[in-house]
Amino acid sequence: MKLFEKIKLDKDVSSQHLYIQLYKALKGFIVEGKLKKGDRLPPIRKLSEMLEVNNVTVVSSYRMLEEEKLVYKKIGSGTYVAFDLHNNEGFDHGPKTSLIEQGHIQLEKNTINFASATPSTDLFPVDDFKEVLNEVLDRDKGSAFGYQESQGYYPLRLALKEYIDNYNIITDINNIQIISGAQQGIDIIAKGLLNYGDYVMIEGPSYRGAMAVFESRGAKIIDIPLEKDGLNLQDLEKKIIAYQPKFLYMMPNFQNPTGISYSLEKKKKILEIAEKYHLLIVEDDYLSDLNFYNNENITLKSLDHKDLVIYIKSFSKILMPGLRLGFLVVPRLVYGEVLLAKHTTDISTSGLLQRALELYLKKGTWQQHIRYMGTQYMERFEAMVRSIKEYMPQEVEYTLPKGGVNFWFKLPKGLSSKELYEMTVKQKIVFAPGHLFFLNNKETSYFRLSTAAVNVDEIKYGIKELSDMINVFMRKENHHSTQTNEYTPIL
Amino acid sequence: MKLFEKIKLDKDVSSQHLYIQLYKALKGFIVEGKLKKGDRLPPIRKLSEMLEVNNVTVVSSYRMLEEEKLVYKKIGSGTYVAFDLHNNEGFDHGPKTSLIEQGHIQLEKNTINFASATPSTDLFPVDDFKEVLNEVLDRDKGSAFGYQESQGYYPLRLALKEYIDNYNIITDINNIQIISGAQQGIDIIAKGLLNYGDYVMIEGPSYRGAMAVFESRGAKIIDIPLEKDGLNLQDLEKKIIAYQPKFLYMMPNFQNPTGISYSLEKKKKILEIAEKYHLLIVEDDYLSDLNFYNNENITLKSLDHKDLVIYIKSFSKILMPGLRLGFLVVPRLVYGEVLLAKHTTDISTSGLLQRALELYLKKGTWQQHIRYMGTQYMERFEAMVRSIKEYMPQEVEYTLPKGGVNFWFKLPKGLSSKELYEMTVKQKIVFAPGHLFFLNNKETSYFRLSTAAVNVDEIKYGIKELSDMINVFMRKENHHSTQTNEYTPIL
Repeated sequence: MKLFEKIKLDKDVSSQHLYIQLYKALKGFIVEGKLKKGDRLPPIRKLSEMLEVNNVTVVSSYRMLEEEKLVYKKIGSGTYVAFDLHNNEGFDHGPKTSLIEQGHIQLEKNTINFASATPSTDLFPVDDFKEVLNEVLDRDKGSAFGYQESQGYYPLRLALKEYIDNYNIITDINNIQIISGAQQGIDIIAKGLLNYGDYVMIEGPSYRGAMAVFESRGAKIIDIPLEKDGLNLQDLEKKIIAYQPKFLYMMPNFQNPTGISYSLEKKKKILEIAEKYHLLIVEDDYLSDLNFYNNENITLKSLDHKDLVIYIKSFSKILMPGLRLGFLVVPRLVYGEVLLAKHTTDISTSGLLQRALELYLKKGTWQQHIRYMGTQYMERFEAMVRSIKEYMPQEVEYTLPKGGVNFWFKLPKGLSSKELYEMTVKQKIVFAPGHLFFLNNKETSYFRLSTAAVNVDEIKYGIKELSDMINVFMRKENHHSTQTNEYTPIL
Repeated sequence: MKLFEKIKLDKDVSSQHLYIQLYKALKGFIVEGKLKKGDRLPPIRKLSEMLEVNNVTVVSSYRMLEEEKLVYKKIGSGTYVAFDLHNNEGFDHGPKTSLIEQGHIQLEKNTINFASATPSTDLFPVDDFKEVLNEVLDRDKGSAFGYQESQGYYPLRLALKEYIDNYNIITDINNIQIISGAQQGIDIIAKGLLNYGDYVMIEGPSYRGAMAVFESRGAKIIDIPLEKDGLNLQDLEKKIIAYQPKFLYMMPNFQNPTGISYSLEKKKKILEIAEKYHLLIVEDDYLSDLNFYNNENITLKSLDHKDLVIYIKSFSKILMPGLRLGFLVVPRLVYGEVLLAKHTTDISTSGLLQRALELYLKKGTWQQHIRYMGTQYMERFEAMVRSIKEYMPQEVEYTLPKGGVNFWFKLPKGLSSKELYEMTVKQKIVFAPGHLFFLNNKETSYFRLSTAAVNVDEIKYGIKELSDMINVFMRKENHHSTQTNEYTPIL
């Protein structure tokens, strides 16, 4: 209580209202970090006695803090500081988690987070990046803060061209477009290519963030069902003929949310179909770097001899999401549209961060970091596979992925993962309910678990707990007995 | 030539083609900064002799470099390096300059640039920013690189709320949305509010970057003519009734391109009209901080008691464009739409830069910097006013602004500023031709001069030269004699 004794209120009648003075003093404590997330504010009576003010004064000041979401009330328990200002990880607005209620779940402390596909911040190469940032500032001075070219900082594009050379993606520097993360890549592609009423094709299920962009452009979305080795080709071809879509958006390696990887054969066939119908493909390569067991882990773009694939590469998963950096490889055919869309969207991506990334790539610590991330993610992957095999009820169907961070499950028919979520979140385990990944939320029995934000211990404990809860859930819903022997394909 | 003697080519037949080896070696020199912008490559015969290879090998390697725009040929003079990789200011892709040919003018060295409204990089507080970046990284570690909340880093929003308190804009932290620059602000507002076919109103003339966004959404744009004290109110009201627009986009202080500031009376009347018709207003406040002589320099938002104004504030002009940071104050009514649009656009703005800005604001060096920028810009402003009064031909009409960086001129009737531009660019003086700021490029006699990227000496010399050229241009076009006495209002 020492802290609160320091509060000095000016009780002169000409001064500001007492409750505003008190509100400001408390807010100051939170802003300066003297009060941290989870700290309890003094009981109202106690603080009013200490400061010799009316109860109402304290109540009003607490209410103002509450309105600003700086504190929250727990009934019967008191008023608590809502979060730590500088370490605000309680809010996870990652692209996948954010799907749950449009990005505003606030997780309770010690929640096991299988929902987030965002890597935990302890894996980031902060020191290396600090070093390159300082080098860039010393080297480039003010230029680092000027407007950068819309297409992106030239040396970075050069470095990226060389980087993807290693993955057999051969392109010209002029076809590389720097973006502020993969989400922006999808956004500017849509802006450049889609007009109101156009058709666009996606995998079913797919990434919600992409659907939201296409919807926002007034496009009509068609989904093509996924099979274990990729899209259903008959359905794809039929729908291309029927709808003449502007492009097909897909994730051929470790697809989100299903984790599946396309077979090499299917990748090639899709490119043949694309050529036959002059169909553009948008390939979202969000984590092909995290390959563990897929011996056909190559990008569509590296097979794209007809220059029909727009390739999106993000650094969010393997480097750091907060960088907000990625790049596109854009076919000559649509290059102008995409560049213009980038310009109208935000003129350019931060030059400072682009310059830092360029230096980081040049220094080669990059390879080292990828290996490190690979090891970390692989440990989690293995723990996940073991735990699933050991604990997951046999009524729950799944196909194990060959890499990446996403695992996809199907509850017995009739059971809703949304309802399961309601139950597990109370026990501090969260995941991504499957309806979020389907057009019109039409399927409810699937769910996705991600290993990106959980460590090995959390995985072992979490999968065991979750499996127990699924068992309880199935019994409660009275479904497990009728469903166990019925086979429905997971994909 | 010493540098080129170092090139080692592997002439074994099993090796890579010689011209590719040579291309790679030369590219290496450019990337590493050993060859700089403007450096001439050796004549073809000379290099081929030195390396004992065929002329064709050298020609082919030069051609590859040329295709990547790393070098350019000057007929009869040789092949030159196209630019300095780390100090790439030759390309100016600022939002205004970029209007000329969609963002791709490459200025010759020593060009006097009245076209760019982007501050010269020597004005940036690089050292202060370096300090806060390092403090943030030491303090927050990996958290600085995690996904940030879509709405923006909470402490930054808190700091901005307090900052605009000083400008009498009273708002809740929850109504502040962090954006990656003003252009993104316009983009997400459009995405959140505009549907295909909606009407939207702008000032005529206005900022091209905003028109491009509205067009991209499939909106229909209506322009309202500007008068010396702001929009023509009769026309505004008439068109609101006729078109029922979704919102009005405007810049009430130091408007771009005209430099005019609305009278306080007109600001109030516009808010009354907005209330009467439930019209939303988007106020783009891009440089009200650079006020020199306007005693009614207040924002519309500070007068907005009905919460109808979406306020856009950019830090590009007064701090550093490369930061790509700004914020919105969003009325309660449309808050959800705008937040969602931000999320689909790029998930969030770089957390590292947000954290650095927060610390920078807290340290208060900010006020100092604003004063410094104010002094710098005012010197340029005064030099501009003096030079215009001294040199500008009397046939050219203008109204002097009371602050900011933009000056707006009108050539005698029938004369096109596009043609004038063709003439001046050859003499290394550029400006922004007026058609760029009008819907359908319908007016051609206006032009805009900006003081953002030119120093006092350049202004004095440049305005004198430009004035001379305008005199020549008018004589050549045979218009000056018939036009001098005819008055047409500049706005």
